[in-house]
Amino acid sequence: MKAFDTAVWEQGRVRMLDQRLLPQREVHLTFGSAAEVADGIRDMVVRGAPAIGCAAAYGVAVEALRLATAGIPPTAESMAPGLDLLRKSRPTAVNLAWALDRMAPLIAAGDPPTLPQRLLEEAHRIREEDFAACRAMGFHGAALLPDVGDRTLTIMTHCNAGALATGGYFGTALGVIRAAGESGRRLRVIANETRPYLQGARLTAWELMRDGFDVTLVTDNMVGHLMKHGEVDAVVVGADRIAANGDAANKIGTYTVAVLAQRHGLPFFVAAPLSTIDRATPTGAHIPIEERSAEEITVIAGQRIAPEGVKVRYPAFDVTPAELITAIVTEAGAAFPPNVATIARLFGD
Amino acid sequence: MKAFDTAVWEQGRVRMLDQRLLPQREVHLTFGSAAEVADGIRDMVVRGAPAIGCAAAYGVAVEALRLATAGIPPTAESMAPGLDLLRKSRPTAVNLAWALDRMAPLIAAGDPPTLPQRLLEEAHRIREEDFAACRAMGFHGAALLPDVGDRTLTIMTHCNAGALATGGYFGTALGVIRAAGESGRRLRVIANETRPYLQGARLTAWELMRDGFDVTLVTDNMVGHLMKHGEVDAVVVGADRIAANGDAANKIGTYTVAVLAQRHGLPFFVAAPLSTIDRATPTGAHIPIEERSAEEITVIAGQRIAPEGVKVRYPAFDVTPAELITAIVTEAGAAFPPNVATIARLFGD
Repeated sequence: MKAFDTAVWEQGRVRMLDQRLLPQREVHLTFGSAAEVADGIRDMVVRGAPAIGCAAAYGVAVEALRLATAGIPPTAESMAPGLDLLRKSRPTAVNLAWALDRMAPLIAAGDPPTLPQRLLEEAHRIREEDFAACRAMGFHGAALLPDVGDRTLTIMTHCNAGALATGGYFGTALGVIRAAGESGRRLRVIANETRPYLQGARLTAWELMRDGFDVTLVTDNMVGHLMKHGEVDAVVVGADRIAANGDAANKIGTYTVAVLAQRHGLPFFVAAPLSTIDRATPTGAHIPIEERSAEEITVIAGQRIAPEGVKVRYPAFDVTPAELITAIVTEAGAAFPPNVATIARLFGD
Repeated sequence: MKAFDTAVWEQGRVRMLDQRLLPQREVHLTFGSAAEVADGIRDMVVRGAPAIGCAAAYGVAVEALRLATAGIPPTAESMAPGLDLLRKSRPTAVNLAWALDRMAPLIAAGDPPTLPQRLLEEAHRIREEDFAACRAMGFHGAALLPDVGDRTLTIMTHCNAGALATGGYFGTALGVIRAAGESGRRLRVIANETRPYLQGARLTAWELMRDGFDVTLVTDNMVGHLMKHGEVDAVVVGADRIAANGDAANKIGTYTVAVLAQRHGLPFFVAAPLSTIDRATPTGAHIPIEERSAEEITVIAGQRIAPEGVKVRYPAFDVTPAELITAIVTEAGAAFPPNVATIARLFGD
């Protein structure tokens, strides 16, 4: 498949496909500072935990270049304000902090004249490693999908954990689907539309159709009905942060899908790179859940769909407890069942 | 409260508030034949099982008047094509067939010259009985709501089972909420937006805010998260058809909410008039589930939100098994727990 420019480097700037306009329009925006990249992340030009990690890494590189170009040596001190904006741009996806932490030793090492180039090389490395991780976790996950005999395997996914949510290639949950396809499995995908931001309708359906997959779009509230009628064989989703015990934060609605999968005896897989596992967070209860603006719910495509002045709740993520997850699939293999011990093993402990 | 004109009689025509345009605009349409009323029902000018029953009753009356005015005696034969269109306008709500069956003996009794007036009187009676039934079931249901001590009681509802879904007054599920309010309970309501038609966002939030209730709008996929965090005390929904064993068809997504309520130990009530109970349907598996057009999912407020050509599933209803329902609340009292015997008792068997 052709990789997406979820966040790439182009002539001294960070270039991103504006995911807010998909699938209607493919527009790319460029960003020249850490502050601009932080705005892009917060405003959801780019979204998806691994993609946010890549964008943040390039954001660090572009900040160093911006300073150097302005005649200010890029140092830990001069870069601190930009790094701080990046770190605070979104709270739940841990890949953001992970990417910044990976860039930090290069900054701490000093040598301002070579820092922009060294940071850029590290950002490139993060993106390339993400490509490889997605492919590896895809095949690890595909091996766990159930055997349905002569039937077509039907996989449900929630939100977009695709190429668009990662460095641009394969994806996490959709990586499992792509690997199953490459392995010759006959399959179809049910994409939950994922209100309020409609990542399933706008992004997952679009990127899978582009690659020739058989995709059916449903509203989030149809999940129970479809499972009850035997129309789903397995669920695969991504994650924004996984705690040390295997509890997984992902897009709002994921927990509901997991409860329904358990009721209907369906396997429920979480696919995410090791960089999404935050071993410093003991359980899901410790994961910060971002609350976003009411307007993202009451206005769709510029049209108001609810009464003026109505109160709104918008937790952007929820936490699925490890007990509802069949396996967490990473580039290092699967934690099966997910718990502190099986997750520690993925890290080679 | 002021009753809505969900379906009323006005100067020889059926007048309906066009619910497709709420909450932005309050437009009333009038209909002069059974065929026009059938179109209005199918196109969802009016929706909600009891409201569809009232609209169909007035549709029969207007058809008799139309024929008589055109010099054609209204008889079982001359009225058959119009009645057939009404009966087929929507498949799941049994109140539609129930209302037509109630008008049938008047037609069968003959006397074409007096038939239009007799049918109109019966339609008025159906609407008035619906007002009384909603009030009665409201207070029966309110008595079953849990005691939460000094806290504010939080009731979740799905879709719109309000005054707008009935003859125009009180409502079924919202009747329970209104009765609880009249009884002095301190309460707040969580309205699930109810994709794809957004009855919760457009109708429930609007009619409850109009009456001064504290309403919070959420997307359907937030239900699990809110219950997990203790933000819901009880669920009350309506029904489009209840089988003899207590299985209840209601707006798509209701089953999912019921599964989540069970997991979180929350009472789950279905409020509906006896006319929604179809004793000729033994179980939920025998209830026909309407599939509606893909466009209602891929286009919101005239804006396309999914790729062209994507496949879509749109079952408009799902079935909640009786085992997940704490009680079915009717104007004759509650079936508690719902089963063949407790439901039979409501009918005085």
